[in-house]
Amino acid sequence: MTKVPIRRALLSVSDKAGISGLAKALQAINCEIISTGGTRKQLENEGIATTEISTVTGNPEAFGGRMKTISFNIESAILFDRDRDAAEAKALNIEPIDLVVCNLYPFKKVMEQGADFETLIENIDIGGPTMVRAAAKNFKHVAVVVDPADYARLMEELSDNNGALTYAFRQYLMAKAFNHTADYDAMIAVAMDKALGQKSLRLNFSQGLGLRYGENSHQKAVFYRENGDKHTLADMNVLHGKELSFNNILDIQGALEAIKGSKAVACSVVKHNNPCGLAEGKNQREALEMAWNADPVSAFGSIIAFNTKLTLDTVKFFELDNADKSLRKFVEVVIAPKIEADALKYLQLHKNLRVIEQDVNAMDYKHDYRYLYGTLLEQDTDELLYDKMDSTTLIPFNKTVNKDLVEFGLRAIRSIKSNSIVIVRRKNGVLQILGMGAGQPNRLVATKLAIEKCKENLRRECADNAAINAELGKAILISDAFFPFEDNVELAAAEGIRHIVQPGGSIRDKQVFETCDKLGLTMLLTGIRHFKH
Amino acid sequence: MTKVPIRRALLSVSDKAGISGLAKALQAINCEIISTGGTRKQLENEGIATTEISTVTGNPEAFGGRMKTISFNIESAILFDRDRDAAEAKALNIEPIDLVVCNLYPFKKVMEQGADFETLIENIDIGGPTMVRAAAKNFKHVAVVVDPADYARLMEELSDNNGALTYAFRQYLMAKAFNHTADYDAMIAVAMDKALGQKSLRLNFSQGLGLRYGENSHQKAVFYRENGDKHTLADMNVLHGKELSFNNILDIQGALEAIKGSKAVACSVVKHNNPCGLAEGKNQREALEMAWNADPVSAFGSIIAFNTKLTLDTVKFFELDNADKSLRKFVEVVIAPKIEADALKYLQLHKNLRVIEQDVNAMDYKHDYRYLYGTLLEQDTDELLYDKMDSTTLIPFNKTVNKDLVEFGLRAIRSIKSNSIVIVRRKNGVLQILGMGAGQPNRLVATKLAIEKCKENLRRECADNAAINAELGKAILISDAFFPFEDNVELAAAEGIRHIVQPGGSIRDKQVFETCDKLGLTMLLTGIRHFKH
Repeated sequence: MTKVPIRRALLSVSDKAGISGLAKALQAINCEIISTGGTRKQLENEGIATTEISTVTGNPEAFGGRMKTISFNIESAILFDRDRDAAEAKALNIEPIDLVVCNLYPFKKVMEQGADFETLIENIDIGGPTMVRAAAKNFKHVAVVVDPADYARLMEELSDNNGALTYAFRQYLMAKAFNHTADYDAMIAVAMDKALGQKSLRLNFSQGLGLRYGENSHQKAVFYRENGDKHTLADMNVLHGKELSFNNILDIQGALEAIKGSKAVACSVVKHNNPCGLAEGKNQREALEMAWNADPVSAFGSIIAFNTKLTLDTVKFFELDNADKSLRKFVEVVIAPKIEADALKYLQLHKNLRVIEQDVNAMDYKHDYRYLYGTLLEQDTDELLYDKMDSTTLIPFNKTVNKDLVEFGLRAIRSIKSNSIVIVRRKNGVLQILGMGAGQPNRLVATKLAIEKCKENLRRECADNAAINAELGKAILISDAFFPFEDNVELAAAEGIRHIVQPGGSIRDKQVFETCDKLGLTMLLTGIRHFKH
Repeated sequence: MTKVPIRRALLSVSDKAGISGLAKALQAINCEIISTGGTRKQLENEGIATTEISTVTGNPEAFGGRMKTISFNIESAILFDRDRDAAEAKALNIEPIDLVVCNLYPFKKVMEQGADFETLIENIDIGGPTMVRAAAKNFKHVAVVVDPADYARLMEELSDNNGALTYAFRQYLMAKAFNHTADYDAMIAVAMDKALGQKSLRLNFSQGLGLRYGENSHQKAVFYRENGDKHTLADMNVLHGKELSFNNILDIQGALEAIKGSKAVACSVVKHNNPCGLAEGKNQREALEMAWNADPVSAFGSIIAFNTKLTLDTVKFFELDNADKSLRKFVEVVIAPKIEADALKYLQLHKNLRVIEQDVNAMDYKHDYRYLYGTLLEQDTDELLYDKMDSTTLIPFNKTVNKDLVEFGLRAIRSIKSNSIVIVRRKNGVLQILGMGAGQPNRLVATKLAIEKCKENLRRECADNAAINAELGKAILISDAFFPFEDNVELAAAEGIRHIVQPGGSIRDKQVFETCDKLGLTMLLTGIRHFKH
């Protein structure tokens, strides 16, 4: 576990950022610098003396730069075991190299620029990974740096340790180096498969937040973040509250998904991964109240997400300071892109409540994945709400007046597990889920569940059954998939529903339309199914 | 796109399987064989003349074998561009190497044997990946073989092409080589992270079955198989029927999951990823009938899985040859570990029905994964059914008589989406889901759904309400999680349920037990929650 004094370094970088500063720091501790081509040119231009690599390799740079570093002398100087092989190295005239600073040909950049196959191949680095892997293997005696972001710490460590590097730092650098070469070859392998017309997929993750357990306490769990620069779900700002659980994270994603794509002020209320409440309007407090009231029983202990900066006025709805504790509305998680300081302070009245800043619109993912027994189902995320709006009934569906409500309802249905039925309405300018039925083997049961929930909700605000029926008659029932038979339409009509939206596509569509006409309903076809499992 | 004659090959393998046969084939076409240490010894013992690598490198093997192949001469001979660099190579006395056969130090094997950190490090191959990557990069002129499974095809191709190799074969080998080095460094990176106490995860997949689209037709999809030797869901034998869809695959996994771990003859019926039917007994036909009858409406168009060899007697239940078409029972997919020839023939009466051989017990996966906006939730699969069986009521829950039924019900509930309630019974020696409620934000709704389904089913077999109540009184209601309040128990009791199983753990457990006593119910606590989302 001894420190390694850095007396001789090899610098060969494709990304030149920060290399001069590092070289100067190495010069200051009297470290010899061996360097190659472009790196050497830049350093010499800045007056930093370097040893040309060919004087060490004993070979010329050859074959259009394909051979620069690879040689018995360089790799021996990196690889030999300073304890076991010292005499042998001396006999072979191998002087140790203590530090390798290297980053690889920019394969990714060239690929993203749409380079042709030949150019891609030319940008596969061979010498770089050899040096990096050799130095990483021999980390007991050698340090390897692959990321310019590590230069600052490298210089600090050198300065703190009198020109040497600790075992711990060398080990950190080693693991990073193998991750770097693994990422590099993963990228190349996928690109080469693609050139052959084969799809392959390599997903790479590092540990994120700690989790106490999985969906249940007897299941261990880990939360990973995908490697790379993209904004991920893990890049959230937890401002307050108890440790997040596995189920919290699942539901946070569900709650964000439900408000994704909304241009209005939106709020979702999620329980067991389904939005039992969802509302959109102009005012955040109103949106929360209307989302909550879609299922005020299930809303207790829910996960609530917003798409606008969270205000004190809104969160006072939770009545966390009500002297009557039974009136306080406890939820598990509150998420918004930003949270105002006074709103946060108010939410902190509840010790366990997790308060999180995260913005669904900052997350740009085109695919989702399901892992099933050693396989992966990849699919495009469900972005297209509808590809037509065809009224199919004698009484036309009013798609001009109801366009925003239909779009709202389609965003709702695509975030509810199938089979699903959602009933949405506009009240005082706010769009709201009035009732939904989720996750049913039988669509008819989903329709029943949605209607029952609507009635339960309307009984709280309506004076009598006539008023309830009037409200149901203005609402829109949306189905995630077509109706195989007329039974759903008949049930909905019997309960007071007048307007139905569905994708269409059943062999019995015609009978369904005729049933609507017979019962005086309007029906709109969207052409796009929204199964979700 | 020219063929490359193989005149000089470098053989350096850690896994010696098949190498002698290959060397003989190369000898037969007058190909010079350069070889290293152990490989050379074996070939020389078999009378195959080889060139010792040090005569090519010009360097000794050094540093305990760390330096064997890496040299200006070897990598130049592999890497130089035969078109562009021919003159330069000649001037430098570099003779081309046309074929590299190499496999790497057995890092994985050593790791799986539980080797210590030092041994792991020593088993990181440096020279091998350098040669392999160099040859792969220069595949326009060089062939590279990393997998002994490719030797047979290599010899065939050499023989078919008069001692040369085609561009297409070289490109195939190249992509395979980069996949190999990517896999190798992925393994090392994860092991090195682990040594630092960091968890990282690298999942690697290749394209499997083609899919027309995802959950819905506007979503593109790909089905990937995880690289490696394990038996995966993709390793199934599709004997008959239409192309599998994305949703079929999701449901196949759900159907297999539901019968996983059963020691009896089991059958599951899945719709939208939830088992609406599940039964276990001694007879396969009985199991199918009982599973079907748990929800005979939803069972149409379902996915049905078995854990025993599928017989003609069983599949005749579908009545695919019934002259009255309305009596034929159409399902989407039938899966069993094996399917008897006459059963297959019968199922083929339905042109579109997918008939698949796949055995859930051949798939051994300890983790499942959920991908959410650039993050991955990993957890142990839900294996532990219960960790206690505590009767908590004055009338004791009869855990001796009901043990198998409780275990059956727990396997059922862990495969149903939360919140879930399942009601199970024993009838004529067969264990059966009598009714279930899935995917509800509110547990009380799940309870209502389960009871309604039971009654619907019992109305078909019982003469009157008294008989229905008697059956319900013998059944067991199982909840995936604890009861937060007494309301579920009160509802169940009012509907005729007498026996309840739940994990326990609510702060109101005591009140729930007292309510059971008041209502004359029995209750069993299992200690293990089974949320599933």
